[in-house]
Amino acid sequence: MPHYQAPLTDFTFLLDDWLRIEEHYQRINAEGMDSELALEVLNQGAKFAEQAIAPLNQSGDEQGCKLIDGNVTTPDGFAEAYHTYIENGWNAMLGEPDYDGQDLPYSMAIPVHEMLNSANLSWRLTTMLTESAVLALTKHASDELKDTYLAKIISGEWTGTMNLTEPHAGTDLSLLSTKAQPQADGSYAISGNKIFITAGDQNWTDNIVHLVLARLPNAPEGVKGISLFLVPKFMVNADGTLGDKNRVSVGSIEHKMGIKASPTCVMNYDDAVGYLVGEENAGLACMFTMMNDARFQVGLQGLGVAEAAYQGALTYAVERLQSRAPQGVQAPDKKADPIVFQPDVRRMLLTQRALTEGSRALSMLYATLMDIEKYTQGAQQTQAEEVIAYLTPVCKAFFTDMGTEVANYGIQIYGGHGYIREWGMEQLVRDTRIAQLYEGTNGIQAADLIGRKLTRSNGAMMQATHAVFSDITARITNTSYQQQANELLNEWKSLSQSLLGKDGEYCAAVACDYLNYVSYTLIGVLWLSMLDTLPNISNTAFAKGKVKTGEFYLSNILPRAQQHKHFVEHGAAAVNATTLSDFIYV
Amino acid sequence: MPHYQAPLTDFTFLLDDWLRIEEHYQRINAEGMDSELALEVLNQGAKFAEQAIAPLNQSGDEQGCKLIDGNVTTPDGFAEAYHTYIENGWNAMLGEPDYDGQDLPYSMAIPVHEMLNSANLSWRLTTMLTESAVLALTKHASDELKDTYLAKIISGEWTGTMNLTEPHAGTDLSLLSTKAQPQADGSYAISGNKIFITAGDQNWTDNIVHLVLARLPNAPEGVKGISLFLVPKFMVNADGTLGDKNRVSVGSIEHKMGIKASPTCVMNYDDAVGYLVGEENAGLACMFTMMNDARFQVGLQGLGVAEAAYQGALTYAVERLQSRAPQGVQAPDKKADPIVFQPDVRRMLLTQRALTEGSRALSMLYATLMDIEKYTQGAQQTQAEEVIAYLTPVCKAFFTDMGTEVANYGIQIYGGHGYIREWGMEQLVRDTRIAQLYEGTNGIQAADLIGRKLTRSNGAMMQATHAVFSDITARITNTSYQQQANELLNEWKSLSQSLLGKDGEYCAAVACDYLNYVSYTLIGVLWLSMLDTLPNISNTAFAKGKVKTGEFYLSNILPRAQQHKHFVEHGAAAVNATTLSDFIYV
Repeated sequence: MPHYQAPLTDFTFLLDDWLRIEEHYQRINAEGMDSELALEVLNQGAKFAEQAIAPLNQSGDEQGCKLIDGNVTTPDGFAEAYHTYIENGWNAMLGEPDYDGQDLPYSMAIPVHEMLNSANLSWRLTTMLTESAVLALTKHASDELKDTYLAKIISGEWTGTMNLTEPHAGTDLSLLSTKAQPQADGSYAISGNKIFITAGDQNWTDNIVHLVLARLPNAPEGVKGISLFLVPKFMVNADGTLGDKNRVSVGSIEHKMGIKASPTCVMNYDDAVGYLVGEENAGLACMFTMMNDARFQVGLQGLGVAEAAYQGALTYAVERLQSRAPQGVQAPDKKADPIVFQPDVRRMLLTQRALTEGSRALSMLYATLMDIEKYTQGAQQTQAEEVIAYLTPVCKAFFTDMGTEVANYGIQIYGGHGYIREWGMEQLVRDTRIAQLYEGTNGIQAADLIGRKLTRSNGAMMQATHAVFSDITARITNTSYQQQANELLNEWKSLSQSLLGKDGEYCAAVACDYLNYVSYTLIGVLWLSMLDTLPNISNTAFAKGKVKTGEFYLSNILPRAQQHKHFVEHGAAAVNATTLSDFIYV
Repeated sequence: MPHYQAPLTDFTFLLDDWLRIEEHYQRINAEGMDSELALEVLNQGAKFAEQAIAPLNQSGDEQGCKLIDGNVTTPDGFAEAYHTYIENGWNAMLGEPDYDGQDLPYSMAIPVHEMLNSANLSWRLTTMLTESAVLALTKHASDELKDTYLAKIISGEWTGTMNLTEPHAGTDLSLLSTKAQPQADGSYAISGNKIFITAGDQNWTDNIVHLVLARLPNAPEGVKGISLFLVPKFMVNADGTLGDKNRVSVGSIEHKMGIKASPTCVMNYDDAVGYLVGEENAGLACMFTMMNDARFQVGLQGLGVAEAAYQGALTYAVERLQSRAPQGVQAPDKKADPIVFQPDVRRMLLTQRALTEGSRALSMLYATLMDIEKYTQGAQQTQAEEVIAYLTPVCKAFFTDMGTEVANYGIQIYGGHGYIREWGMEQLVRDTRIAQLYEGTNGIQAADLIGRKLTRSNGAMMQATHAVFSDITARITNTSYQQQANELLNEWKSLSQSLLGKDGEYCAAVACDYLNYVSYTLIGVLWLSMLDTLPNISNTAFAKGKVKTGEFYLSNILPRAQQHKHFVEHGAAAVNATTLSDFIYV
């Protein structure tokens, strides 16, 4: 398995040169935050990812998780790495200072999150969902609940989970049937079965805090009758010590295609003690606080795996000697040339890199918008919220589809060796495949983008996003690049507006194509902006290759947007002409 | 795991209505062959695939293969199913009658092969390579070798293997270093290590016949110094009984992403007794007899898995209730509508079906060309050979890329359940992934198509293929369909001819796009031809859905060809502008 090296040169370029992060922190009055601190976080995060968890990735996949006597065990070294992680404060990066969080900007934390995903996706999952639980509790829980639980989840002393899915209720949470019965002491008795619960149990911490969606008696049907509850694995005494085990148990752990080192649990709640988070019947909104964060973070998983796959493929392509290059002998002292000199291999490597680095640019722009949402107020904050709302499904679905494509190129460049477990490339494909499914399948993301985000806001969120990308375009100094970017923005706006008059059936049929169109187009604008910045940076060796990668994006990737545009305009009819009897015949 | 049902309705349509197989057999003077026999083979093959091996697919994946004391054991039931297979004569379908083969047309055998792949890819692999070995021995071995070995491999009493790859020599066989030392008795002592040897050992048969590429002393360097040898696992006495074990052993079995029930072996030859097949130093040509057959058969693996994934996804989409359809409530008596009514799900199902059935049409056309090559002589045979040569890399690469795409849609339609092993969809993705890699990666197929097949024949093989597709187009009665087909053929010819003047570096950079362009275009012509046939068939329920699938192909899949055309014309520059230092920087 190739050794992961965090892409520090690219992150430094993005933060310092492209996003001008120092000016960004000043502009949003992020006190005490500067480029030096950002680069220090980057460097330390890289060390942790490279040295503490990347070496556990392959062994974790081999060992998997075990359920013995109702208790989950994760692979060797996982718990120890977690303890190092929380001791070094990584879990608290984004937490509120009132509960011992470090309150760092997202632009500092998100690069570290990407690295964790590259190094060991299974390991990262538990802390990712813990951070999402922190967000939901910070925003919706009572002070009493916060005082008991929040600081311990922020520090990582306890982890958090997210319990939505039931066997018959996944995409459609309105069907969920877990029950919450009010008790005399103000608590609730929670009963039901949840599936696909990441780290529903683990051997890392003394306690686990489950966030569980359930229905109160006589709650309205559908999603307006769902409430959110906090259900601890162990009861917490008034003095903060742990009491009895709560009536929650692990039914089984799933056997999955990948992320085998992450325990995916079936959870049984049998009159377990739970506490209401937020208002009654408003649980879905509370859960969405968590879910929006998780959706972007899942996007980062696709991005992280893509980087790992690109690195692995590049290492192999430089070392593997096979045949001569068609443009002439490249290594006359050897019996064959490294396959990196084969144009078809370079085409695959460039595809991997252009997609990965373009997506990273979008993720870092998203991070700065999260900073703006966090540190500013008023119109600036509102705009950032709207842009984040529009871009969240884009990042989730596009980065994870891209992650699967890039990881598959990783296998392909290795040839037959890519299929063999010891080389590590097939694990990346298996691991990242889940990211297209959980936190809402990518089809659901597309429906969210074209429905809730585009048409239901009557284009307002798209317009807000357009304003941000127009600002980026306005700062491009190269007039040719600027003109190309403006053409992309105009086309995107016009295509988006053309959808406002379409009905739900039409939009549903073209949703995925719209999402892909938007993704390729906006990343195209970001590549044009980066191409404008690159000639001015000091690391000319890095700039030379990155410019060629950007040019490859424009000539060999961006045209994909036109195909998706074609299907947005012409793809619905043949889909919607069909019905059940066209598929089922004798 | 969904129950596999062989697509007999589609095969019957293709054979009887579309290809008019009865007239085809008369035209090529295939004595004793008729539509009735073809449908009988279909039906019996379907029974075997559905009942004997499909039920072993999931348990085979779970159990995998074991190497104990140098002997390979395959999963429970695999050997028994094989014995049923050979007892019922399936292994002998294509063998020469002189050696107890049934000598059936390819158009009868290939549907059965597709079904075997759908039902259980791991199980099928061993018999597939045995058939390839039969071909190579039939064409190149001495009568003495044939008399000893051929009938037993045709019947399936013994299996065959194909030993090409070595750790440092995969794509580039010129680097292989296994040695063959001539012995006084006319045999050769074979020494070396081979990797990725499918069914290098198994517990199905008493003996195994390995075909091994090796170098004679003082052989010319490169591919012109490679010879082919037959190396039995056990020596064969003059009376046909088995003698001592030969000096060939299994070093290990590989741990793979998928096809876990197929033992992929590292083979060690240590002065093993081998017999020359064909001429000295002409081994690669002999092996290509085997490899061309294997390449098309690997294409059928992608096709077979695609069919299985489509069936699984359709079953789930009809049963799974989640949310309401955007076009209105479809199942008012239920709490939610089946997801097949979601346009995005139908878009995925139609993509699966249009790709699978389009590819099946091409595979069956290919089968009739194999029939022509087998039963005719002179110009007709030569033309068929040229068309087969051009279409082999197309079928291998396109069907297997398509198989991965379609299998991934299978997972996606299942949502989170698609990632869980018990549902069976993720196994299809893992199993079919190998097909893009072995028998030459799909990049190598593309290089073969644009290099050896298109430009090195100065377009002759493409012209021969064009003639066949022009004949198909000439028989289209609907003038609009015919016109569309002619436009596709003209564009394909013109794009192909534009490549004849390009250098090797340019062609290498656009090879994969050319292969994809050709595939989507030619399958587009076949869909137009099928759309022309469908209104006249008696099964109108089947015809209605298939017409809509064909229309979906034209509107929602065929436009992909334009994107690949764009990259064939404009994609090389950005690839070939890069070199090693663009990827490796400090």
